[in-house]
Amino acid sequence: MRHDERKADQLRKVDIIKDFVIHPEGSVLITVGNTKVICNASVEDRVPPFMRGEGKGWITAEYSMLPRATEQRTIRESSKGKITGRTMEIQRLIGRSLRAVVNLNELGERTIWVDCDVIQADGGTRTASITGAYVAMVIALEKLVKAGKIKSLPITGFLAAVSVGVDSQAGEILDLNYIEDSNALVDMNIIMTSSGQLVEVQGTGEEATFTRNELNSMLDLAEKGIKLLIEHQKEVLGDISLLIEENEKKQVMSK
Amino acid sequence: MRHDERKADQLRKVDIIKDFVIHPEGSVLITVGNTKVICNASVEDRVPPFMRGEGKGWITAEYSMLPRATEQRTIRESSKGKITGRTMEIQRLIGRSLRAVVNLNELGERTIWVDCDVIQADGGTRTASITGAYVAMVIALEKLVKAGKIKSLPITGFLAAVSVGVDSQAGEILDLNYIEDSNALVDMNIIMTSSGQLVEVQGTGEEATFTRNELNSMLDLAEKGIKLLIEHQKEVLGDISLLIEENEKKQVMSK
Amino acid sequence: MRHDERKADQLRKVDIIKDFVIHPEGSVLITVGNTKVICNASVEDRVPPFMRGEGKGWITAEYSMLPRATEQRTIRESSKGKITGRTMEIQRLIGRSLRAVVNLNELGERTIWVDCDVIQADGGTRTASITGAYVAMVIALEKLVKAGKIKSLPITGFLAAVSVGVDSQAGEILDLNYIEDSNALVDMNIIMTSSGQLVEVQGTGEEATFTRNELNSMLDLAEKGIKLLIEHQKEVLGDISLLIEENEKKQVMSK
Amino acid sequence: MRHDERKADQLRKVDIIKDFVIHPEGSVLITVGNTKVICNASVEDRVPPFMRGEGKGWITAEYSMLPRATEQRTIRESSKGKITGRTMEIQRLIGRSLRAVVNLNELGERTIWVDCDVIQADGGTRTASITGAYVAMVIALEKLVKAGKIKSLPITGFLAAVSVGVDSQAGEILDLNYIEDSNALVDMNIIMTSSGQLVEVQGTGEEATFTRNELNSMLDLAEKGIKLLIEHQKEVLGDISLLIEENEKKQVMSK
Amino acid sequence: MRHDERKADQLRKVDIIKDFVIHPEGSVLITVGNTKVICNASVEDRVPPFMRGEGKGWITAEYSMLPRATEQRTIRESSKGKITGRTMEIQRLIGRSLRAVVNLNELGERTIWVDCDVIQADGGTRTASITGAYVAMVIALEKLVKAGKIKSLPITGFLAAVSVGVDSQAGEILDLNYIEDSNALVDMNIIMTSSGQLVEVQGTGEEATFTRNELNSMLDLAEKGIKLLIEHQKEVLGDISLLIEENEKKQVMSK
Amino acid sequence: MRHDERKADQLRKVDIIKDFVIHPEGSVLITVGNTKVICNASVEDRVPPFMRGEGKGWITAEYSMLPRATEQRTIRESSKGKITGRTMEIQRLIGRSLRAVVNLNELGERTIWVDCDVIQADGGTRTASITGAYVAMVIALEKLVKAGKIKSLPITGFLAAVSVGVDSQAGEILDLNYIEDSNALVDMNIIMTSSGQLVEVQGTGEEATFTRNELNSMLDLAEKGIKLLIEHQKEVLGDISLLIEENEKKQVMSK
Repeated sequence: MRHDERKADQLRKVDIIKDFVIHPEGSVLITVGNTKVICNASVEDRVPPFMRGEGKGWITAEYSMLPRATEQRTIRESSKGKITGRTMEIQRLIGRSLRAVVNLNELGERTIWVDCDVIQADGGTRTASITGAYVAMVIALEKLVKAGKIKSLPITGFLAAVSVGVDSQAGEILDLNYIEDSNALVDMNIIMTSSGQLVEVQGTGEEATFTRNELNSMLDLAEKGIKLLIEHQKEVLGDISLLIEENEKKQVMSK
Repeated sequence: MRHDERKADQLRKVDIIKDFVIHPEGSVLITVGNTKVICNASVEDRVPPFMRGEGKGWITAEYSMLPRATEQRTIRESSKGKITGRTMEIQRLIGRSLRAVVNLNELGERTIWVDCDVIQADGGTRTASITGAYVAMVIALEKLVKAGKIKSLPITGFLAAVSVGVDSQAGEILDLNYIEDSNALVDMNIIMTSSGQLVEVQGTGEEATFTRNELNSMLDLAEKGIKLLIEHQKEVLGDISLLIEENEKKQVMSK
Repeated sequence: MRHDERKADQLRKVDIIKDFVIHPEGSVLITVGNTKVICNASVEDRVPPFMRGEGKGWITAEYSMLPRATEQRTIRESSKGKITGRTMEIQRLIGRSLRAVVNLNELGERTIWVDCDVIQADGGTRTASITGAYVAMVIALEKLVKAGKIKSLPITGFLAAVSVGVDSQAGEILDLNYIEDSNALVDMNIIMTSSGQLVEVQGTGEEATFTRNELNSMLDLAEKGIKLLIEHQKEVLGDISLLIEENEKKQVMSK
Repeated sequence: MRHDERKADQLRKVDIIKDFVIHPEGSVLITVGNTKVICNASVEDRVPPFMRGEGKGWITAEYSMLPRATEQRTIRESSKGKITGRTMEIQRLIGRSLRAVVNLNELGERTIWVDCDVIQADGGTRTASITGAYVAMVIALEKLVKAGKIKSLPITGFLAAVSVGVDSQAGEILDLNYIEDSNALVDMNIIMTSSGQLVEVQGTGEEATFTRNELNSMLDLAEKGIKLLIEHQKEVLGDISLLIEENEKKQVMSK
Repeated sequence: MRHDERKADQLRKVDIIKDFVIHPEGSVLITVGNTKVICNASVEDRVPPFMRGEGKGWITAEYSMLPRATEQRTIRESSKGKITGRTMEIQRLIGRSLRAVVNLNELGERTIWVDCDVIQADGGTRTASITGAYVAMVIALEKLVKAGKIKSLPITGFLAAVSVGVDSQAGEILDLNYIEDSNALVDMNIIMTSSGQLVEVQGTGEEATFTRNELNSMLDLAEKGIKLLIEHQKEVLGDISLLIEENEKKQVMSK
Repeated sequence: MRHDERKADQLRKVDIIKDFVIHPEGSVLITVGNTKVICNASVEDRVPPFMRGEGKGWITAEYSMLPRATEQRTIRESSKGKITGRTMEIQRLIGRSLRAVVNLNELGERTIWVDCDVIQADGGTRTASITGAYVAMVIALEKLVKAGKIKSLPITGFLAAVSVGVDSQAGEILDLNYIEDSNALVDMNIIMTSSGQLVEVQGTGEEATFTRNELNSMLDLAEKGIKLLIEHQKEVLGDISLLIEENEKKQVMSK
């Protein structure tokens, strides 16, 4: 039994609120247990210098935590004058994951900036960021379609992320909160699409190691969790979900 | 008449929500029209190096905006690697203002960090930050009293801030939103206590000037607005307000 | 009585030396008591990126102190690798104030850089900088007129700055030196034009507050001091002063 | 068939030269195909501030590439004034991996710094760095044992790393060179111990996805490659290898 | 003949004004032709961390130019956020040169900071800085003697610096101004003591080369110029000069 | 006698290996005693902004040391976020020296970047860098000639560098290793061409001074050492040496 009485394969309570902030093209507040992240998607009508003239678009992400999102106050990265390695890793991960389900050629020479700002943290902030960022990005892309700037939604499928791990007592568990994360022998983040394809697998045994069997159990748990998370995304996206499901079917058929 | 149909001396809708984030010692979300700021107060059991050994406490503030708090996305200060002049001015102002109503000797060698993070901006973010930061700080100080770490609430009175300005059509106006602020001939921020004392007066005629009469009209408007803001603070602080009112009376009597 | 035997409304000895450095388009050394600032104005034939193509000019200022301008040596900002909040506030203030009396449209797409370098400090360095910077800027603009690059002097009036404050013994006082400034209950900087219009009012009660009456007394003192400072400016500017006075009259008439 | 005629499960030529640089406590040059990395291990007799007083040691790594290690010259991170996200990710990965096979309690309050400097790059620089860094670290630790500073070699097993991937033609392949890496659909880095335990699994489908089956094939290839790399490590470590094998057996028995 | 009608071996007009700024322990304004440098010496009662506990003192220098010391405005190093290579070279040179004539053991654990701020530049700013810095440093050290903090003046001799060069027309010349410096084939800075010993020789043929004969002619010119500069130093130092001359004699005799 | 039994005028063992790294246009590993430097030359088809449109080329250098090139580990400049004064001095020196023997007009609008990375240090790293950088640069330029991008090798002569110094026991000595360098009274770096012309003379008496006679003895030693170093360069350059010798003769004849 886990300390918050969840079963090994049980997600925390998930909530995704649309239009949380008024200015961005896409904006959601995602809540996973006590973890809360504002995900804002912005459209910019140009791409970074290294991509100009290719006719392709780009998706990039930035991630940050408010100083008191955490139990102890952390110093702002703007005060330190530099971004930590952890932040860089996370924002590279978010951007890379989102790009896996976007047809960048259909997007045209545009950049979607996705800002994930953690206002309250209790473990799993990077996976909650990806799950929420996906929704914010889709909403922003939908507006581009509605405005006639792109022909159709350049999204090939749903995408969500979840953490899994190995606990010394509970064994393999799904969706770790902060206490579980701090004590886990193995910590893993899995990002998958609605068709069950893997986008990213990052497993780390900090001062520990793990077996192929444990890896497989964790992947099974993640698959289960991600399916539920995608249900939440579908609900908040409403009709847009149907378009994505259609795109997904076309994809499978064209393979 | 103002473009949002307010009267010249009318505040926007104000709302202060307590305990918005779970980790900080004091936390509020303040809403003034479409401006929303999370104000979190943290207690640290030491003071900055330049103050050690004096037995006094310190209040310091940090201010930041989410990239899409604004109509156009702004680059993060952490990405730029430095804090802008505007941010520095604002965080110095917030800290200085709060210190004017705190008895730093009674606080002891502790620092209160107040983080003001603007999640949505529509003018008046620095004054909303001060009005909200005051409440978050008081809640944090109250916990120190309850925990027996300090004898009594080291607060000498209420404190709130508001912007006033001169509009080419509407003349002197209270509580400018972003459109009004962009077009104002004169832009002023006033910080006052509940006893009507001035803490800070900052009036700027960007590429313009103003008369003593206009200054006086603006100060009258600010006084009116600040009284109403303090009413909101009292409501959310509940019983703690009574302690502050008592402290204020003692102060006046001892003069 | 003040510790240097001045009356409450008495300025320190003021001296403005023209052409102090040979290279700049405008250069003065301003001395106010023991405070000495080199003010150099440079003309650049373009404007910052955010203003290009508007046909307007720009005035910007930089401020710095030599390490031993002060009693104790201060570390250079170039060694620290960043500009302090105090410096940023001051250089933004100088630039904003100067722009209030310049017709930027008449200036054309040019930038005037005004560098204020304090070589000796004894309080009031930011107000001395503004009073001196105004003279250096006017001299540089006059050279543009003489060289036929602009038609007429784009200056709408004189501009000077002074500090005022509240002392626990002497009450409201004019032009604070370092010792007075360190002990003042209230510290205020006032910037006014020759026609008595306010450009900037910055009053701060660091760990203290002030009344509307005290504010009014301080404004009266400032008005008196600024009139005298403008007399000094007129003397050093000689014939150019007549042009400015004429511009000022035209302005008043056109209102 | 792969473009350099290797089989899918074939490593490039591996060479590990001991004592490449004279000053470090441990130093090797590792060559994997055309990839060459100098790995130097340094012993420092203290730990980072956050670990002081715990009686435990620490292993940390830094990674860098010479500007012309690559086909195109890259700008030095020292010239840019900051470390890129890629470098941060890699040096965090190297340090974390090495710590998985070191008994930090037995090390005592010491830090082992492992510097991995790529002098020539042709894909797989991070995995070559880990494989070489392990050897340099073990040599440095052995000197601490010889000098009587620690009782026994605090190493629980061998550790090596290899890249695997999915190529659109060749399918799953082992040990990708630069051309293969640039074209791979999936890119994965696997770090394992001599007992077949996983330490880190990082699989990324940049603008692509992969199946559980593909993941399993890649893990099989990696296991094969890592066994061979560990053979190379044993050869260069000579007698020290025996001590590590013994430690490994004790570990397995104590489980 | 040189363009300013000087002879090949003729210095520009030299002037050294004592007590130019009131706060520093030693302060001079040195003028060499149109080059003007404020040299301020500050005493700090400790040494840098790497020297603590050795009982020895340290001399260090910082060098900077006002933005409009030059014909074209240069960007401040504080705005750029870093010190240029040229500045670093110069301040290392000044510090090293001064240390050559100070008995650091007699100084005790104190640092003398010498700040050289160029307010007007016309070539030879680094050599004028050294010649002026020497005087400011001696005045500051003399105050330490007078205050009883050190027994005797820890100065072993006079020290001055001058530039020499090779001009395509005028041949070898002494004390180059800016125009000469810009056109010189060879540029050399020589630092010598009053006893004719060399402290530093830095000769550079930027895109050119020079012969041993030219080197010798330049050294002869420098020797002549430095003797005259030391005369100026003696004049401004007055009685202190006698102490230095005595120290110098003792030194020669003890050899 | 010197501590490594060399005579006063004896170089350490010198070795220059061509094509050490595969990617750069020119690459050598130079070994002087225990000092080892990788020198890589890269060709870029443009010049820095300040030189554009002049039709001339540019040679620039960067210098760095691996953290464990030295006895004690030094912190990376990329970690510190800035380049030290020492590094800046050295890379400016290398670039300036190389430019003295290159005809920049013949090079056309191209930049040659020369990267000198010290992998093992035992004194004389800057002079070894210059001697090796010259060879790498010539190889890169030769490739430009072969590719028909420039007509002929734009090199006017050979160039090498060596250190000399004054030792308290051994007197004037050639090619100081680290121990000798640490104890030397005078430290000097000389850069000369094959025709015996001086390019750069940098002599420093850190907390000491030197006479004209000592200077002359050191220059004699340097001349001897540089001749031998140029022999090594000729050997490794093979046939290219003949072209340079011819260019040199033409130069002498045209004078």
